[in-house]
Amino acid sequence: MTAEPFVVIGGDAAGLSAASKCKREAPDREVVVFEKGRWVSYAHCGTPYYVKGEIDALTDLLSLSPTAIDDRGIDLRREHEITGVDTDERTVTVRGPDGEAREQSYGDLLVATGGHALTGPIDGTDLLGAFSLHGMDDAAAIRAALEPAGEATVESLGGGEFLDPSVIEPYADRTPPETVAIVGGGYVGVEMAEAFVAHGLDVHVFQRGEHVLGPFGEAVGERVGTELRDRGVTLHLGETVERLAGDERVERLECAGGTALDVDLALVGVGIEPNVGLVADTPVELGDSGAVAVDDYGRTAVENVYAAGDCAEARHAVTGEFDWVPLGLTANRAGRAIGQTVAGDPKPTGDIAGTAVVKAFDRECGRTGLVDHERAEAAGFDPVSETVTDASRSGYYPGAAETVVTLTADRETGRLLGGTIVGTDRAAVRIDTVATALEGDMTVDEVETLDLAYAPPFSPVWDPVLTAAKVLNGSLDD
Amino acid sequence: MTAEPFVVIGGDAAGLSAASKCKREAPDREVVVFEKGRWVSYAHCGTPYYVKGEIDALTDLLSLSPTAIDDRGIDLRREHEITGVDTDERTVTVRGPDGEAREQSYGDLLVATGGHALTGPIDGTDLLGAFSLHGMDDAAAIRAALEPAGEATVESLGGGEFLDPSVIEPYADRTPPETVAIVGGGYVGVEMAEAFVAHGLDVHVFQRGEHVLGPFGEAVGERVGTELRDRGVTLHLGETVERLAGDERVERLECAGGTALDVDLALVGVGIEPNVGLVADTPVELGDSGAVAVDDYGRTAVENVYAAGDCAEARHAVTGEFDWVPLGLTANRAGRAIGQTVAGDPKPTGDIAGTAVVKAFDRECGRTGLVDHERAEAAGFDPVSETVTDASRSGYYPGAAETVVTLTADRETGRLLGGTIVGTDRAAVRIDTVATALEGDMTVDEVETLDLAYAPPFSPVWDPVLTAAKVLNGSLDD
Repeated sequence: MTAEPFVVIGGDAAGLSAASKCKREAPDREVVVFEKGRWVSYAHCGTPYYVKGEIDALTDLLSLSPTAIDDRGIDLRREHEITGVDTDERTVTVRGPDGEAREQSYGDLLVATGGHALTGPIDGTDLLGAFSLHGMDDAAAIRAALEPAGEATVESLGGGEFLDPSVIEPYADRTPPETVAIVGGGYVGVEMAEAFVAHGLDVHVFQRGEHVLGPFGEAVGERVGTELRDRGVTLHLGETVERLAGDERVERLECAGGTALDVDLALVGVGIEPNVGLVADTPVELGDSGAVAVDDYGRTAVENVYAAGDCAEARHAVTGEFDWVPLGLTANRAGRAIGQTVAGDPKPTGDIAGTAVVKAFDRECGRTGLVDHERAEAAGFDPVSETVTDASRSGYYPGAAETVVTLTADRETGRLLGGTIVGTDRAAVRIDTVATALEGDMTVDEVETLDLAYAPPFSPVWDPVLTAAKVLNGSLDD
Repeated sequence: MTAEPFVVIGGDAAGLSAASKCKREAPDREVVVFEKGRWVSYAHCGTPYYVKGEIDALTDLLSLSPTAIDDRGIDLRREHEITGVDTDERTVTVRGPDGEAREQSYGDLLVATGGHALTGPIDGTDLLGAFSLHGMDDAAAIRAALEPAGEATVESLGGGEFLDPSVIEPYADRTPPETVAIVGGGYVGVEMAEAFVAHGLDVHVFQRGEHVLGPFGEAVGERVGTELRDRGVTLHLGETVERLAGDERVERLECAGGTALDVDLALVGVGIEPNVGLVADTPVELGDSGAVAVDDYGRTAVENVYAAGDCAEARHAVTGEFDWVPLGLTANRAGRAIGQTVAGDPKPTGDIAGTAVVKAFDRECGRTGLVDHERAEAAGFDPVSETVTDASRSGYYPGAAETVVTLTADRETGRLLGGTIVGTDRAAVRIDTVATALEGDMTVDEVETLDLAYAPPFSPVWDPVLTAAKVLNGSLDD
């Protein structure tokens, strides 16, 4: 067993999954986790629902408390920032809360530094009242900004020992906003539209493309657009936001085409970037995506250095190539596998299919695999898609709801490449059927003859996924 | 093209799927469907919800009307019973409504005669008020028996042109029942318990085994037992019903062990048998199950004679052997494939996995593949199972509900063999993930690394199916 410790940079999903699994499999191995912030092991994906008010306390989003992490025998050091990595000496430089830098040697190193929200190329995102939503402090600040003046405190927000009062201070005495602009109609934009509507705000979503939820394709995007409008959200499609303007605080949003809107609050959700600065000057290599390049075990180009989570690539089940799809399960799974590998029992991190689901008010949306034709063509496929509109239950059964499924396949081989779904009744989890078929390398013909579940309250005789496969199979035969 | 017509015996799921597909692919081919009753193309699985009162009219359960069938160019002859099959001469003997027998020649023949409800070895099932639920007439009669005296008519029941008044006549003037016994705690028993409770009856379920829903395994059966009791249903487990007794009408139920109960109505749901009498004296062969033996294209031992639906076997995706699992999708799918084959473009009927879902009040239950260890051992496997109790959503998200997943795998190969699920929140459709993995011949290791969907409103980071795979994988390593 390596004498030097397993050092983990980053105390969220990937980092703590790796630390926990390593400790479980190799209890004698020293495991040290450095986290630059106060928060650890929290559920990113839950933050919109915290802002919405469906979840009372920020600390409800913690998967593990520092005490529980300590109980696992993990040496967790919060507010410790890694400022340098030396892969020749196998050391990292750490700056603790006292501001002093120390060296820490490692036997194995996991880079689990996550990502950060993109704000560019939009001007004025540093104004007060201009937010992105990436992490717990952002969620706390937005929630504080929505509360009546003087009401938001660390305690009222459920910030526990983790929330620094300075995060919410600028918003404590402010009149709550009435008009909010969301820049970007992706996951974060759609989820936050729901959250802001719940607070009674006048919500405007600005989206560069012609429909929201771009990665979910047109069939989903259009229906979610309708849902948002039905809920009172104003959609500004085909608009490129250039600037947030104001004097100290955000007061106005301006688009390239001249559209402008007076706003009290702005949320910029235009994507994230991997945090790779730490390894920039090391022999650790980046992939074409800009995230850390790894192999099937999460190993980087440097021996004993691993990467996982939102900062790392993973192999895509459909293309077979490495790709960057920062999602929660991927981070947890890769971390856990690396923990086992470091403990001496190598385990692949697993392929990704880019499976994602999102709730837009009552619409459930799912996507997996390759949906975009340009993307599929770039990967060497000849994509064919069909979209069907079906019912979620037998047509005569109460509650049967419209369910729209799109499947994409390769014309030559018939192989399933990807799919999307949108509907109000148990739609999202049905994408797992498509994801599983993708990872099983199934053809549309094989999907069409899957023995899926049928009972009137849950599905028509032919599940919507089967119906889509039937129709697509017909097109492939043409 | 064969000059003689494609003759189909039976006008329900398999028969009409085959007729429709053949007509679509080969419009010039003559297609004749003989149905001995009045009803055609109806949704068996919807009948409990009709009895419950969630569906107003019996005719709502029709997938296709006779007119729509006619519009497809299919020669449908209702109230025409086939009384003989001569595979040497390629003819069937038909008795029409006038009582006269005629010969009909065929080029291809599909036996889609369905099944019938078992009643033996229970005495007294011919008494008035003793029902089984297999088909539309049974549903009409039971619903009539639940209505206040004098209220049930063909019109009030939504029987349209299909319901023979003699079916409901015996129940028209009867006082509605107060106490009902259900013999058998399978799908029909569980669904009908919900239906009878909705009518305010005192409901008793008698089950030979130690839990209900035997094919769903113990974890599901026990939770559904709890659900039934919570809803006021009295469960009599480990009881073998011997006799229904009464003077013309059912008055009493008696078990082998001495248990007895005064009842006003009894529903016997102890399974079905394939209708194979018609081919008994022909060279068409039966399989070990007693249903018609077929190949992967639904072809019987006799050239140009096919069988599909509840009277026929199909190949099981896990065992690779032919088996008899009478379910709605199987019938539709096999019929459709045979229609295409008969039209000149051969298509396999597809494997079955025995995937089934059932609603028990608010509990959603699913099963697929091999669940029973004895059954798995008989198929040559060394089964290992694990059951996990997980949440349907992120634990902090409102509505997260207990979800219990059992997965079974073969110890030596790690191959997934089957699974079950039970829960109140989107549980049933999750079994499709397991069914798809089964048909993809996946190992538990592969299931554990599936990229399934995660978002707090729909799933924890690790979907309950993934968690079950993780735990089972751990057991396989032991």
